[in-house]
Amino acid sequence: MSNNFEVIERVGISYESSSDAIKSVVNEANNEKKIGWFEVIEERGRVTGDGKVEFQVKVRLGRKLD
Amino acid sequence: MSNNFEVIERVGISYESSSDAIKSVVNEANNEKKIGWFEVIEERGRVTGDGKVEFQVKVRLGRKLD
Amino acid sequence: MSNNFEVIERVGISYESSSDAIKSVVNEANNEKKIGWFEVIEERGRVTGDGKVEFQVKVRLGRKLD
Amino acid sequence: MSNNFEVIERVGISYESSSDAIKSVVNEANNEKKIGWFEVIEERGRVTGDGKVEFQVKVRLGRKLD
Amino acid sequence: MSNNFEVIERVGISYESSSDAIKSVVNEANNEKKIGWFEVIEERGRVTGDGKVEFQVKVRLGRKLD
Amino acid sequence: MSNNFEVIERVGISYESSSDAIKSVVNEANNEKKIGWFEVIEERGRVTGDGKVEFQVKVRLGRKLD
Amino acid sequence: MSNNFEVIERVGISYESSSDAIKSVVNEANNEKKIGWFEVIEERGRVTGDGKVEFQVKVRLGRKLD
Amino acid sequence: MSNNFEVIERVGISYESSSDAIKSVVNEANNEKKIGWFEVIEERGRVTGDGKVEFQVKVRLGRKLD
Amino acid sequence: MSNNFEVIERVGISYESSSDAIKSVVNEANNEKKIGWFEVIEERGRVTGDGKVEFQVKVRLGRKLD
Amino acid sequence: MSNNFEVIERVGISYESSSDAIKSVVNEANNEKKIGWFEVIEERGRVTGDGKVEFQVKVRLGRKLD
Amino acid sequence: MSNNFEVIERVGISYESSSDAIKSVVNEANNEKKIGWFEVIEERGRVTGDGKVEFQVKVRLGRKLD
Amino acid sequence: MSNNFEVIERVGISYESSSDAIKSVVNEANNEKKIGWFEVIEERGRVTGDGKVEFQVKVRLGRKLD
Repeated sequence: MSNNFEVIERVGISYESSSDAIKSVVNEANNEKKIGWFEVIEERGRVTGDGKVEFQVKVRLGRKLD
Repeated sequence: MSNNFEVIERVGISYESSSDAIKSVVNEANNEKKIGWFEVIEERGRVTGDGKVEFQVKVRLGRKLD
Repeated sequence: MSNNFEVIERVGISYESSSDAIKSVVNEANNEKKIGWFEVIEERGRVTGDGKVEFQVKVRLGRKLD
Repeated sequence: MSNNFEVIERVGISYESSSDAIKSVVNEANNEKKIGWFEVIEERGRVTGDGKVEFQVKVRLGRKLD
Repeated sequence: MSNNFEVIERVGISYESSSDAIKSVVNEANNEKKIGWFEVIEERGRVTGDGKVEFQVKVRLGRKLD
Repeated sequence: MSNNFEVIERVGISYESSSDAIKSVVNEANNEKKIGWFEVIEERGRVTGDGKVEFQVKVRLGRKLD
Repeated sequence: MSNNFEVIERVGISYESSSDAIKSVVNEANNEKKIGWFEVIEERGRVTGDGKVEFQVKVRLGRKLD
Repeated sequence: MSNNFEVIERVGISYESSSDAIKSVVNEANNEKKIGWFEVIEERGRVTGDGKVEFQVKVRLGRKLD
Repeated sequence: MSNNFEVIERVGISYESSSDAIKSVVNEANNEKKIGWFEVIEERGRVTGDGKVEFQVKVRLGRKLD
Repeated sequence: MSNNFEVIERVGISYESSSDAIKSVVNEANNEKKIGWFEVIEERGRVTGDGKVEFQVKVRLGRKLD
Repeated sequence: MSNNFEVIERVGISYESSSDAIKSVVNEANNEKKIGWFEVIEERGRVTGDGKVEFQVKVRLGRKLD
Repeated sequence: MSNNFEVIERVGISYESSSDAIKSVVNEANNEKKIGWFEVIEERGRVTGDGKVEFQVKVRLGRKLD
């Protein structure tokens, strides 16, 4: 078993807030395999066809190697 | 007609949250002319005279050239 | 009396949102001594033992030197 | 008359190459008003519906103030 | 099914141009699984034993999570 | 009327000093429309034909949207 | 077979030194699949419960695509 | 006694020049306790109510730990 | 009692290695007050009068607010 | 003989493409003394008097010390 | 004769101002060989033994290759 | 004689540690001409054919102009 960690990069989507986008992507990744920590890398977005602001938040997620 | 885009820079203000500041400035710009995408550049703020936290969020906004 | 400012660095914690973490650390510092402005430097976090997303937001806080 | 310059930001599009995207946006802007210099800021893109690589190159363009 | 995206990082190789290196790595990744967008991160290279300039372009590629 | 701000980018020129270049471009912009704040982004320059050092200072200027 | 490379991100742990943390994570990854190069991205750490300094070094590792 | 140093962050104010703002904040800090070195981090400012350009220069100041 | 953290900045000195400089400054700070985490910010140095390489490593140290 | 490398910085010029500018400056340097690797640092340019886009690409070039 | 440029890096010293330090190092380099442009990279300094602020400004200088 | 400094860039190689790579390149340069200070810019490496981790550390070295 390793003492080291791997880091993966994902983008969370929300029409509510950037914190919502972060919760969405962190919780989803944590359900696959336990997350040790996350780092917010970038925040972008767009306006959807029906006029909603879409938050796109890029995060790095760290988790223990098996 | 051009295939290219222009990018403008604005700062949104909110006393609620940074996502609120982003929505304010993105919606306002989108009402002037349709926004293709936005990027969050910087987040700062101050405490107002009556003790509220003011969120100041700088965003770049991309839109089609005419 | 000085015309200059000092800048200190703190990390706010919240289980709700990053804006909540900012409000927490800015209000706490402002109660010690009046804050002139703040800058958000970094946003990280972790998943707690009972599955909540913890937001950790690093801010620089500027205030008048005495 | 001013001695100073203004800087605007645009994104050029090409399906050939990033240099093509730069030429497109620089020439277009130069036709509106003479460009003094440009700086490449960011290079991104996507794959179109019919499988072509689209180059999106963000440039800053400097030109004399009137 | 998720609303979120994953981001992977690759380096494309070409002896023609950096845009060629980008096309090579974007097309190859798009054949494995549809790419939503890409970002150019770094451009390096070397001179090969027989004197050709080798372009090595690092890109991040975003694609929908299943 | 908006609560938000716009940010424009300019380059000031001086043969005296970088602070002189900043004053030149900030004052000129403030005469067009009141400036809320400025940020120094980059400092470059050249030697003129008759041997003077030309300071070129890039600043971002923030001002209230109407 | 591809000419291109993939880049993965890992964090090595050591109680001796940052170079030890790098060797640990590079050797471990190289045993899984031959590594072409690595880049050190970030160096952080903590003090353990029994007072040892733990080095956490984030590296990007490049390797040939199959 | 320690061999190590501490680093503090301050913002100097001047209506003359950025170098003046640096001298102000470095001299003031040096009078409290001897400064080993300083680093200029950021330069911003505003136009005062009576039309003067205010230079705000952020510096890091290093000094010996006792 | 606060849930938040403060961050201080120090420079560690060693004539052996950069990891030694980090251990020196982290241990010294941890003896004053328990450190939660540290981040390496910058690594510089000089050659001493008698020809030894001096490592100067700047770290940020996070610790719980009282 | 040394095991170490030196790094020099050059700017390549082309009226065709940025990759052309890179090839020009890498080949020229490689003819003087064998180049181990290169890194692209910055891409700028201007429009010439007769309306051509000039690509100016700054590269760092690494080569073995004698 | 080459169309390309080389870039060298120097640090100018002044006890008056950072612009003075820039003029000193740019003029000195221009006397050796004509300078095409310069870029300010970093501004640091120290307090001298007799209490003067010493400005140390790092610049990159570009000049035509022979 | 000049009061100014020049800065050169080198990469040190070691199979032991990054600090070893720094010592190697700093000592070698100091033997050619006295070094005033150094700054660590980048740390990369590779795994050699016989499985050793090679540390490649890029440093900038400052020294007095003659």
